[in-house]
Amino acid sequence: MNFEPVSKLFLGNLSVVNLGLESFARNLSGAGLPVVQVDWKPPAGGDSKVLAALDAIALSSKVDIDKANDAAVSRVLAAKPTVVGIGLARDVVPGMRKNLILHAGPPVTWQMMCGPMRGAVMGGLLYEGLAKDAGEAARLAASGEIDFEPCHHHASVGPMAGVITSGMPVWILENKAFGNRAFCTLNEGLGKVLRYGAYSEEVLVRLRWMRDELAPVLAGALGLHGPMDMKTIIAQILQMGDDGHNRNRAGTSIIIRELAPYIVLLDEPRERLSKALAFMNANDHFFLNLSMPSAKCSLDPAMGIEGSSMIVTMARNGTEFGIRVSGLGERWFTGPAGMVEGLYLPGFSAADAARDIGDSVITETAGIGGFAMAAAPAIVKFVGGSPQDSLDITRRMYEICITENDAYQIPALNFRGTPTGIDVRKVVETGILPAINTGIAHKEPGIGMVGAGLVKPPENVFFDAIVAFAQRYV
Amino acid sequence: MNFEPVSKLFLGNLSVVNLGLESFARNLSGAGLPVVQVDWKPPAGGDSKVLAALDAIALSSKVDIDKANDAAVSRVLAAKPTVVGIGLARDVVPGMRKNLILHAGPPVTWQMMCGPMRGAVMGGLLYEGLAKDAGEAARLAASGEIDFEPCHHHASVGPMAGVITSGMPVWILENKAFGNRAFCTLNEGLGKVLRYGAYSEEVLVRLRWMRDELAPVLAGALGLHGPMDMKTIIAQILQMGDDGHNRNRAGTSIIIRELAPYIVLLDEPRERLSKALAFMNANDHFFLNLSMPSAKCSLDPAMGIEGSSMIVTMARNGTEFGIRVSGLGERWFTGPAGMVEGLYLPGFSAADAARDIGDSVITETAGIGGFAMAAAPAIVKFVGGSPQDSLDITRRMYEICITENDAYQIPALNFRGTPTGIDVRKVVETGILPAINTGIAHKEPGIGMVGAGLVKPPENVFFDAIVAFAQRYV
Repeated sequence: MNFEPVSKLFLGNLSVVNLGLESFARNLSGAGLPVVQVDWKPPAGGDSKVLAALDAIALSSKVDIDKANDAAVSRVLAAKPTVVGIGLARDVVPGMRKNLILHAGPPVTWQMMCGPMRGAVMGGLLYEGLAKDAGEAARLAASGEIDFEPCHHHASVGPMAGVITSGMPVWILENKAFGNRAFCTLNEGLGKVLRYGAYSEEVLVRLRWMRDELAPVLAGALGLHGPMDMKTIIAQILQMGDDGHNRNRAGTSIIIRELAPYIVLLDEPRERLSKALAFMNANDHFFLNLSMPSAKCSLDPAMGIEGSSMIVTMARNGTEFGIRVSGLGERWFTGPAGMVEGLYLPGFSAADAARDIGDSVITETAGIGGFAMAAAPAIVKFVGGSPQDSLDITRRMYEICITENDAYQIPALNFRGTPTGIDVRKVVETGILPAINTGIAHKEPGIGMVGAGLVKPPENVFFDAIVAFAQRYV
Repeated sequence: MNFEPVSKLFLGNLSVVNLGLESFARNLSGAGLPVVQVDWKPPAGGDSKVLAALDAIALSSKVDIDKANDAAVSRVLAAKPTVVGIGLARDVVPGMRKNLILHAGPPVTWQMMCGPMRGAVMGGLLYEGLAKDAGEAARLAASGEIDFEPCHHHASVGPMAGVITSGMPVWILENKAFGNRAFCTLNEGLGKVLRYGAYSEEVLVRLRWMRDELAPVLAGALGLHGPMDMKTIIAQILQMGDDGHNRNRAGTSIIIRELAPYIVLLDEPRERLSKALAFMNANDHFFLNLSMPSAKCSLDPAMGIEGSSMIVTMARNGTEFGIRVSGLGERWFTGPAGMVEGLYLPGFSAADAARDIGDSVITETAGIGGFAMAAAPAIVKFVGGSPQDSLDITRRMYEICITENDAYQIPALNFRGTPTGIDVRKVVETGILPAINTGIAHKEPGIGMVGAGLVKPPENVFFDAIVAFAQRYV
């Protein structure tokens, strides 16, 4: 190449592109020069230990990370999530037992639990008949007699507090490509519901009805219908304005229309069947508890791939946000759960909000939810922002993902596949954090939902993972 | 203002914007000048009679056309289309009688009917038991004993051939704001169906089942449900990827989920109820026959407004395309129906296609369908083109419309209301023709659907309407 001397640069009119610190741009702009300001931060926030790890990983030839990531994400793309039944948690969830309560996110003790998770635990104990009132439930929860473990350690996921007790009915999903299963409770609706920390009689009555009437009806209908292919359904809902996380109106509609012809055939009182159908029709988030285990059972076969820097779990317990990385086994990398920016229900404000909570971010981990927001522009009426934001968010996620999921296409992006398989290296290199949309629970137990919005994961979880990855693989 | 002498224009570097004839642009471009070519045609294709009419209308103060148009379109915006029941055509459609067959589009004789409409008429006569076979049906249709009249003359609309016979069940819609009603048959599905001109035994068996089982089930469920507000439902489907004309998956889903809790309560054999639900689930165009009469009963109160140049009807009979203009009463302005450009089902090509046919363009007339294509980017998999085309088409329609419908919002356009109320003056002035998406029937009777695509109305119908408008109002 033929370079001109640098001195010549200043002979003509200068047009400046300034990266990073805005003060430079302001000075030049003040001097009358045209300046384009580009937001830029050094990778890893300039943390030298993390940068060193990133460099070491880039230079190391000990393991072919790209190849490992291709292997990991290929498993996600090959997944065939399928609804195969409904059962009681104690009968179907591995390791489930009477004194075990599963919760969302990484491990957490009763002492460290946030308000809504405590509320959901208390509600779970009341539901199980292990406590007679809220006070007794709180004492029992604190007594050490109850074990708390993450849903994710039991092939399960739960939205918001994510509480699963042994006597709760759960969807059974099977990944037909790999044979692994995933489990999730049935969705209760919005407002005063257990997963948002409410545990009043109204909440418990609904949960018992779901166990005694709704679940048997759905199980019966599913038996007549046969296994329900979630991959096809998720592909459809992305063409119908859903993202599979906070907009589930199309998904809920499809589940109803698929099952209704079989529900009506069941030998049950007609009123019972009608109530089941009406309940689903009144709850546009019913589908969430199917999209979540679909994502979970799609991701699980990608865990434990030697040398893979792909994130296989993201989850929050309301106190901490945690991730797990394929090549780093079962280890959680955690940081403080963030505050959600969003829209509040009438009568509530940010002052009422609990921190980011729930396993529902498994949808983003699998390339739908916030990663597919471009498919769901109307979601901004629920979580805030503009339709343009929803396009921008998805476009940005391509920069931190390994590939695109051709089965899950976004019409507004000319049928481009959703960004899939978060590479923790790319997150740290670009400073682009995974985009997550989520519900907002009240910070006190017993109240319930107060809003919905967008939230950022804590940066340190990705930094810590990179450092651990370097320790393991360099 | 301070103009520079024209001569100075040629001293500097010329940058040329060329309107119209491309040859000028090519010459300049060939001479090395940068040229931007703008497609432009003189209004009314340069037809002096039409231009004179347009000028005369613009200069005349005899009637306040803008005010009249505001009055007309306000009625469309105020409409409250509501499903109130199902009945047999002979019991509910005004003027219906045994020897009358209603059809799509402007008036047409048996002799002038296209293949698929003839096929549908023959099927209708067989369905009514007025003929024993296709030959007898054709002879009866040609005999003069059967009257043919447009659906539109009987407060009705029908997709494609649009055939309504006296013994067919029809949806009853009521515009709760004005009290007028509109009627439409129930949708049969795609492929070999009467409205696409098929009349085989399979078609007739389905039609009889729809009359004897499906319609009573839906009528019963609707009775328990109560009137169904179509304005709210149409608003929802535009946020779920439907346009209400050729993409109706969300609308069909909503109808199913709304009615299923009541269908299950009916005192009918469970298998019958199940079959009705399964039929709707298998037919994603089921909603079309509800969006059409919703549009029809929303537009009818806007007919006959003195001085209004708003188009209140567009419809095609497969031979001719016709429009009616509010201020010009019942008069049809017609021209040759166009050929559809689109995608064909396997085994078929453009050589098999009938001309543009059906009353379904009532959806575009009311501001949904093609006018709302930006809400339905996935429709391009059915009608051809790219998602960007669907945005461009809606944006272009704002240029020929009087207003926007705030109840019908398009998320991808930042919740802008759909372009509503076509002003025939603007169509002629701009040369922008209404955008229509549509199904394609086989040109021969007895075959059925062969594809779907986009079609242009003939220009002359708008020119003729402008000339008539000038005659009436200048």
